[in-house]
Amino acid sequence: MADRNRRMVLAQRPTGMVDGSTVRLEEVDMPVPGDGETLARVRYISIDPTIRTWMDDAPGYLPPIAIDEVIRSGGIAEVIESNSDKHKPGELLFGFTGWQEHVIACEATGYQALPDGVSPTLALSLFGITGMTAYFGLIDVGRIQEGDTVVVSGAAGATGSTVGQIAKIKGAGKVIGIAGGPQKCASIVDELGFDEAIDYKNENVAARLHEAAPDGIDLYFDNVGGEILDACLAQLALRGRVVLCGAIASYNDRSSTKGILNTSNLIVKRARMEGFLILDYFDRLPAAREEMASWLGEGKIKSSEHIVEGLEHAPDALNLLFTGGNTGKVIVQV
Amino acid sequence: MADRNRRMVLAQRPTGMVDGSTVRLEEVDMPVPGDGETLARVRYISIDPTIRTWMDDAPGYLPPIAIDEVIRSGGIAEVIESNSDKHKPGELLFGFTGWQEHVIACEATGYQALPDGVSPTLALSLFGITGMTAYFGLIDVGRIQEGDTVVVSGAAGATGSTVGQIAKIKGAGKVIGIAGGPQKCASIVDELGFDEAIDYKNENVAARLHEAAPDGIDLYFDNVGGEILDACLAQLALRGRVVLCGAIASYNDRSSTKGILNTSNLIVKRARMEGFLILDYFDRLPAAREEMASWLGEGKIKSSEHIVEGLEHAPDALNLLFTGGNTGKVIVQV
Repeated sequence: MADRNRRMVLAQRPTGMVDGSTVRLEEVDMPVPGDGETLARVRYISIDPTIRTWMDDAPGYLPPIAIDEVIRSGGIAEVIESNSDKHKPGELLFGFTGWQEHVIACEATGYQALPDGVSPTLALSLFGITGMTAYFGLIDVGRIQEGDTVVVSGAAGATGSTVGQIAKIKGAGKVIGIAGGPQKCASIVDELGFDEAIDYKNENVAARLHEAAPDGIDLYFDNVGGEILDACLAQLALRGRVVLCGAIASYNDRSSTKGILNTSNLIVKRARMEGFLILDYFDRLPAAREEMASWLGEGKIKSSEHIVEGLEHAPDALNLLFTGGNTGKVIVQV
Repeated sequence: MADRNRRMVLAQRPTGMVDGSTVRLEEVDMPVPGDGETLARVRYISIDPTIRTWMDDAPGYLPPIAIDEVIRSGGIAEVIESNSDKHKPGELLFGFTGWQEHVIACEATGYQALPDGVSPTLALSLFGITGMTAYFGLIDVGRIQEGDTVVVSGAAGATGSTVGQIAKIKGAGKVIGIAGGPQKCASIVDELGFDEAIDYKNENVAARLHEAAPDGIDLYFDNVGGEILDACLAQLALRGRVVLCGAIASYNDRSSTKGILNTSNLIVKRARMEGFLILDYFDRLPAAREEMASWLGEGKIKSSEHIVEGLEHAPDALNLLFTGGNTGKVIVQV
């Protein structure tokens, strides 16, 4: 065990994609656990689009990451030294580890034990922020109903792939995924059970939506914003619901995004567009995770993961989300 | 009584504002009432922004007006000849009269008697489509709550002026109206009791919203769309609600409207944007009109009306809505 802690801090705010000048890998003294605290070794880091938004000096649902501060992210850490009677060495905890090798982990700093029988990578995917976001967005915000025609963008990503599978479980009439490239499109249909896929890189999304959802979209789960959101708004069914989860199209460049032109179709269709954050559902996570576990046990849902090795590759791992280089949940193994 | 019926039909679809080439005034044979029907003389015509949308050959919540068809609109007609034991000559009926002097009016063609003690112009304003739109939009869709900071655009118009007044009645903490020009701004504050007015023609709306609603907008009632909608989205409070009622900024020119850039603030603020049409509330109109009548009786609400004389001026009356030449409900007295 090293007596130094390697960590990655924000060196300067990025313009566009993250690169070598955005972060700085540094070594500092190992943190020392106080009374009731533990020292834990970070094993896995959750890579999520929202991390990119925290790097901007812009108002958001959490404060921006400060310059010289460790990059904020969820992760799984293993207790290696405990001053708490609640945690023993070897125990795995989930919390905001950040991009570093060691953390002080305890309930007071927001850590919790992994759900029973759930592996670390599952804890970050289906049972983590992305899976739970899919669950509450679709069920609570989108109020999915049997027979719904559901469309989800970023469909091969961690959240999108879970949305499509839960939609099928909940009795959607048709689930259409929008993803980039023929490989991802094939994978969501063949491996995850989507009914249809639209390749936004090679197809006209508006025309294909018109074909694939001729009676309109009942529920659109939006991970991307921009032109794809606009095309879905134009194709809404009466009383359609648009769940706004993310706007990945604009995270690296807020200025160039084309505006949304079809908001007035929300009037004609008496439709609703609503944003949400998983933060507001933390008290309901245990019940949702229980349902997720039962689906997993029955073989009704699969986790799709994309593992990147090494803390030093965390910035590249983040960029994968924006270049579309990943299929499934991106996780850095530290 | 003439034996001919003067009426205004759609001659060609307008590009931009309606002009002399859009409509044609023509005389046709007087319609003859059948069994159970009445012949009625149109007295007042309701001028609403939605009429302009029906002139386009574009999908909407009602079919487009066909070429050579009478311009569709609500109105008040007086029974002059009755083959129905339900209606007597002299009785006033409300329905889709269209832009013409005579109609066949009966329950089967969707006509109903005016509410007791309500004048024809009140029947078209506070008790008509615009007043009822304000009522259900604010209460049902916007779920107004005591203490809310409410913003309404088109605030000097028929719907907007009613929205602001109902918001005050329902206990809004602050009601801010957005209107064009100092005169309208003064009138909504001095005569209708709005707390504050923003003159979008002479002030920076985004900056003024920031000042007037420093803790954010809880409820924005949108009559205009476009840049004003975008500015309000940027200033939403946590769990803000955006009620989409109309998008008057784009009715005359769908192409040039700048897109909406701030939809992703709906995520950060866990906010909801929802469209509605008064059509869906027709079964609840009697109860709403009863409440409106009690407010009127208690002097809590005022009707603001802008009367234009003469069927031949109906196109100019419609244009007033888009040039902002009116204050209150535009009604053509036939």
